[in-house]
Amino acid sequence: MIKPRTAPGVLELLPLDQIAFQGMLDTIRRNYERFGFLPVETPVMELSEVLLTKTGGETERQVYFLQSTGALAAAEPGATPELAMRFDLTVPLARYVAEHEHQLAFPFRRYQIQRVYRGERAQRGRFREFYQCDIDVIGKDSLSVRFDAELPAVINAVFSELDIGEFTIWLNNRKLMRGFMEGLGVADPERQTLLLREVDKLDKRGAEAVRETLTGADFGLSAAEAGRLLDFVQIRSSGHDDAIAKLDALGQGSEAFNQGIAELREVLELVRAFGVPESRYALNLSIARGLDYYTGTVFETLLDAYPQIGSVCSGGRYEDLAGNYTRSKLPGVGISIGATRLYWQLREAGLIDTASSSVEVMVAQLDEARLPQCLELAGLLRTAGINTEVQLEPKKLGKQLQHADRAGIRFVVMLGEEEEARGVVAVKDMRKQEQFEVARGELAKTLRVEIEQARAMGDARHD
Amino acid sequence: MIKPRTAPGVLELLPLDQIAFQGMLDTIRRNYERFGFLPVETPVMELSEVLLTKTGGETERQVYFLQSTGALAAAEPGATPELAMRFDLTVPLARYVAEHEHQLAFPFRRYQIQRVYRGERAQRGRFREFYQCDIDVIGKDSLSVRFDAELPAVINAVFSELDIGEFTIWLNNRKLMRGFMEGLGVADPERQTLLLREVDKLDKRGAEAVRETLTGADFGLSAAEAGRLLDFVQIRSSGHDDAIAKLDALGQGSEAFNQGIAELREVLELVRAFGVPESRYALNLSIARGLDYYTGTVFETLLDAYPQIGSVCSGGRYEDLAGNYTRSKLPGVGISIGATRLYWQLREAGLIDTASSSVEVMVAQLDEARLPQCLELAGLLRTAGINTEVQLEPKKLGKQLQHADRAGIRFVVMLGEEEEARGVVAVKDMRKQEQFEVARGELAKTLRVEIEQARAMGDARHD
Repeated sequence: MIKPRTAPGVLELLPLDQIAFQGMLDTIRRNYERFGFLPVETPVMELSEVLLTKTGGETERQVYFLQSTGALAAAEPGATPELAMRFDLTVPLARYVAEHEHQLAFPFRRYQIQRVYRGERAQRGRFREFYQCDIDVIGKDSLSVRFDAELPAVINAVFSELDIGEFTIWLNNRKLMRGFMEGLGVADPERQTLLLREVDKLDKRGAEAVRETLTGADFGLSAAEAGRLLDFVQIRSSGHDDAIAKLDALGQGSEAFNQGIAELREVLELVRAFGVPESRYALNLSIARGLDYYTGTVFETLLDAYPQIGSVCSGGRYEDLAGNYTRSKLPGVGISIGATRLYWQLREAGLIDTASSSVEVMVAQLDEARLPQCLELAGLLRTAGINTEVQLEPKKLGKQLQHADRAGIRFVVMLGEEEEARGVVAVKDMRKQEQFEVARGELAKTLRVEIEQARAMGDARHD
Repeated sequence: MIKPRTAPGVLELLPLDQIAFQGMLDTIRRNYERFGFLPVETPVMELSEVLLTKTGGETERQVYFLQSTGALAAAEPGATPELAMRFDLTVPLARYVAEHEHQLAFPFRRYQIQRVYRGERAQRGRFREFYQCDIDVIGKDSLSVRFDAELPAVINAVFSELDIGEFTIWLNNRKLMRGFMEGLGVADPERQTLLLREVDKLDKRGAEAVRETLTGADFGLSAAEAGRLLDFVQIRSSGHDDAIAKLDALGQGSEAFNQGIAELREVLELVRAFGVPESRYALNLSIARGLDYYTGTVFETLLDAYPQIGSVCSGGRYEDLAGNYTRSKLPGVGISIGATRLYWQLREAGLIDTASSSVEVMVAQLDEARLPQCLELAGLLRTAGINTEVQLEPKKLGKQLQHADRAGIRFVVMLGEEEEARGVVAVKDMRKQEQFEVARGELAKTLRVEIEQARAMGDARHD
């Protein structure tokens, strides 16, 4: 007898939790599709040679390699296996776009909702297998900054519908940051990265400690320069006009600096034109995103009531998606939602309701002789688009109702001798704890209306 | 520069193909949910010790093992890696049900739509990564044969909605087959398996060659016994009454024989009560399913016009799902659709239409000054549940229409100076090649109606 258990570092859910999680993925997908993004799925495994072109260090050490039994037996010690598992959806996207470049229409809007794999050290809230839900717009040769403004509109649609409280999309621009640092005399990109990394410790180490490092031997800024930098990164806007005013107040600087401001201004105006409420987007000049990858607009999304969760949706603009695979210049802008971690964190915070099933109706069995009639009723409900379970085995009614209750099924349909004689069925609403009768021919329509009303009043699963 | 390419043996699709494939998966999922099946997802990797308990031979040689960079470096030669990829969804289901046994309600109806991995020899139409779409009902201690009848009802719902032509669900029962072979004096299960394997070659080798083998040294049946066996496995019914009559004509036999007949009779009657048209189910006493796993009802599903595709949905009844993991007896019945292979075969047969996009409307850009109004229109369409792409970059209208046409987008919405002045928008229906005007306030409603009409006349994607 083997103890049944999952490998460490994975999130496996019980059915009602899976329904809630699936509802989250469906909401994300629906909104991605609403904005005209096209689905892409790539294989979980890629050729190592293709996947691991330039990623070095941290990521590469976390890659999972794949070997069939035969390959394992034939493997030479120390050799890199032929196949590896994707660790994100960006490298597969680059490979996909470069491989199918001539069959795709640009700008290419794609979404991809799949799991990725990282050989992380197992710890609470860290997963080795997790969903990423990505969208990217890829241009050929060039891509207007207008596309940068579409992504906050998508984020707004997704998180409004996820219904997990108010949120703020933070915007910044790497050109602006770069230009600002050039103004401080830090022109070397590597030193800029180090500087940003230092400034990123503001919350953790406090302003004084960071200021000391900035004016120390490593960076050698003057006290005034350090002060200007710390003031700069602490700029946050509140409302649309304030954002524009704060950009105006930055004045003029290097070409990159001015371009960053111009791009941010255009993105802010368009984000408003896309209908995103102004309470939901703001400038935050400390946002840099870890990756050196980003070159223009960068995004983070924070839940207002749960800042400790960190960014729930991040991304930005990059200049060249697939330089390893093609000579074509493919600039893009994208965002990613780490759905597994987000779900886990929302559940920890008590923000996920798992009380309702995807099953909407249970047809009880009061009497074995009426099983065919019950099957017929269930067929009518299903034809009307209602998810319906039938009790096929005879059990006490109390047990059947208990099952519906525990399973989160809202309606129980009952057909006994007496109901059949009168051409009606009895319906028990498990949520309202009410029972009513309805003519057989009206059953599907009546329940359809009830279910749609519950959905319209916020998703039925949030009651 | 690395050549961008996928590993051999995977199916990666272009966006319009992916939309068609995704539509197929959505249809399968929707119908599984319609019958009250609950979603389960399991991690792609399992502990090797748990996954590979008893599967030997063929399957084990095809397993992919997973090692992180660190594990690879530390691996001892010849040792089995700790992690392996699932090769089907049945072993993970067994592990899942045994692991969560006390948190699940039985009978447990679950569906699972995920990819599985097999280190197959790469060849056309054979995949190393492919989707399986499984449903199973698992009982605790016992499970009524009635559940066996629910699965043909699900198959009927799925394949009706997939709209790929008429199909027939073939039914048989392993007890009946076992009982029949006992009647021929073949009581040893291993010899029965060999016998079935021989009989399975009927189509390939022809009746005479098989008859010779059956009466030869290996099996030693008399000519009369071989004749009875060949007659038996060639029994097919045509219509419900004929199926019942053919069962009646089999007479009496061993206990297993009689029980098999009784089960088939009950299943057939209930399949009819579930509303499956009698043209869509039939007895076929040659169906055995390769696995020794099945113990009662077995199913295969054939497309009437494409028998050469083979079974597109198979399964059956088993006595003990999780004997390796728990002492509880967990009988079940299940079916599986190999969606990747099915999609590929249907596409080869020209049965998949990939002309329509998930994007329903494109808002063209006639004039940069009106971009905010275009964004507002798009917002209204999206709020009405219409998937809408906006042209954000100024291009010639001809180019924009060409894009909509190639991308399979049906409606193009245009707002110029003149339309704006009159409070209307112009709509071009790319499918009908018609253009009409509609009041701005009526746009979303009008297109919603058009789109729903197209859907109601068979899925819009099948036009």
